[in-house]
Amino acid sequence: MKSMSIKVSAFATVSNVGPGFDIMGFAVDVEAEEMIVNLKEKPGIKILKSLGNKNQYPLNLEKNTAAVAVKKMLSFLGLNIGVEVRIKKKIVPGSGLGSSAASAVAAPFALNELLGRPFTKKDLLLFALEGEAAASGSFHADNVAPCLFGGFVLIREYNPPDLINLPVPKNLYCTIIHPQFSIKTSEARKILRKEYSLKDVTVQSGNSSALIAGIMKRDFELVKRSMNDLISEPARSKLIPGFYEIKEAALNAGAYGCTISGSGPAIFALSDSERNARIIGHAMKKVSDAYKRKNIVYVSKINLSGPVVKG
Amino acid sequence: MKSMSIKVSAFATVSNVGPGFDIMGFAVDVEAEEMIVNLKEKPGIKILKSLGNKNQYPLNLEKNTAAVAVKKMLSFLGLNIGVEVRIKKKIVPGSGLGSSAASAVAAPFALNELLGRPFTKKDLLLFALEGEAAASGSFHADNVAPCLFGGFVLIREYNPPDLINLPVPKNLYCTIIHPQFSIKTSEARKILRKEYSLKDVTVQSGNSSALIAGIMKRDFELVKRSMNDLISEPARSKLIPGFYEIKEAALNAGAYGCTISGSGPAIFALSDSERNARIIGHAMKKVSDAYKRKNIVYVSKINLSGPVVKG
Repeated sequence: MKSMSIKVSAFATVSNVGPGFDIMGFAVDVEAEEMIVNLKEKPGIKILKSLGNKNQYPLNLEKNTAAVAVKKMLSFLGLNIGVEVRIKKKIVPGSGLGSSAASAVAAPFALNELLGRPFTKKDLLLFALEGEAAASGSFHADNVAPCLFGGFVLIREYNPPDLINLPVPKNLYCTIIHPQFSIKTSEARKILRKEYSLKDVTVQSGNSSALIAGIMKRDFELVKRSMNDLISEPARSKLIPGFYEIKEAALNAGAYGCTISGSGPAIFALSDSERNARIIGHAMKKVSDAYKRKNIVYVSKINLSGPVVKG
Repeated sequence: MKSMSIKVSAFATVSNVGPGFDIMGFAVDVEAEEMIVNLKEKPGIKILKSLGNKNQYPLNLEKNTAAVAVKKMLSFLGLNIGVEVRIKKKIVPGSGLGSSAASAVAAPFALNELLGRPFTKKDLLLFALEGEAAASGSFHADNVAPCLFGGFVLIREYNPPDLINLPVPKNLYCTIIHPQFSIKTSEARKILRKEYSLKDVTVQSGNSSALIAGIMKRDFELVKRSMNDLISEPARSKLIPGFYEIKEAALNAGAYGCTISGSGPAIFALSDSERNARIIGHAMKKVSDAYKRKNIVYVSKINLSGPVVKG
């Protein structure tokens, strides 16, 4: 076998979309990472450091989401070959933007391309979920599913996965501000409230249901009214200096809702044009900069492609 | 002022649509009651017994939902006139099919017609909600809203009401079996679990969100997968002899989900044709009849009209 190589990109994802805690996510046109995968004759999986990139991801084969996903895929195929994975993170891990999911998706996607596509995208989800579980300790599809399929995904159920890809309004824009520090998903989960009242359940399900209706009806005002979350925001906002000020700035600048992406610290806001998305980003950055921390702002439509092969 | 009279009909409603506890309801083409409203010069509200109808509704002006709604409406208009209301219940109260909501809706609807429509339907909702609160002790719109507007309604928020009228698949049919005994809404609420885990919240909101997506996409298989409820069914099924057998019979007969309507004892099942709805009704009745209780079966499309003036 000759050495074969492919370079792919996977995109960042926003999960826990307001009231959609653990059940919703969408992809954005922001590159989360670039990955080069090489096939080798000599069996074994290797995760390589990427030159010029701070290797803030685990190189350990049990912890690295790409390695775990690749291992599952090779074992499923009964293939005893070598796979070398070189990752160039474009977003710092621990961002709330699905960095570990991007690796979990990019690796089986790339390997599937190299092998002549023995699997459908839907098949790949299972390997990606196994990979993601290595990072988070449990099966979570709210980053992996939108990263793999693109679009806005509702995850009704995990076992077996029941994913609903929603029609996305063409003019739905997302502004993301990413303060440059890391929050561990496992830590961010520990601080969530454990018990909820009957009223809490109906409020959360009322808002999550209405958010789906708002997206499907392209009713941005309804999306805005629905963007209330009882689970993540009240607890995790404490981990992000100035969160409520940044949110207020986004809403005052015209955002249709603004809250934490995933475990944070990234914060996202929705809007209906690129121009407004940029104005909102400017307003958020102005407030966040006052906290003397480096911030990166992204403005994007919803990504519809999933991972892509690079030139 | 001459005596003026009007006869109206209001329709039955299914609330707590599976995972849509307290946030969803739809109307069916099943007459819940006929109401005759008379205007009189002599001030005062009277609820009259209807000849040939078992008066199982309260005649007390503080408890009768029609009387409370009429009182609020007259007081809002500053009108000091007499209103006589005669109700002919077509469904036994305590059915889970929105009997009290039908009175709360029919009365202000009829009075508005008699007065030359000073209010929009949206205005009438507030009077109907006040009326319904007289019966249930709290503001609940999951019967009142679909009864007034027709269709499938998502109630995101009660205060102020934020109602989302969903596009309903044209071939969505509902089968209802109504075992002829009563369950008190207040009693049925007491037996609900008070505390829910984080997992419960995500499961319920995942299913409620997916149900909305299923209805809007006309995806009946998704509707079926989403019809899981953690709140009402596990507790209230104990009040309905043979509930799980009846449900199983409906699902085996091809229903896209089957659960308790409102507080019960009525049970509803969804299907995609009148023929299937009748087959499902037959299967449900066969099981329920074995419990030696009289059962009435209704088969209907979703009602889209709201209350109507009768000829």
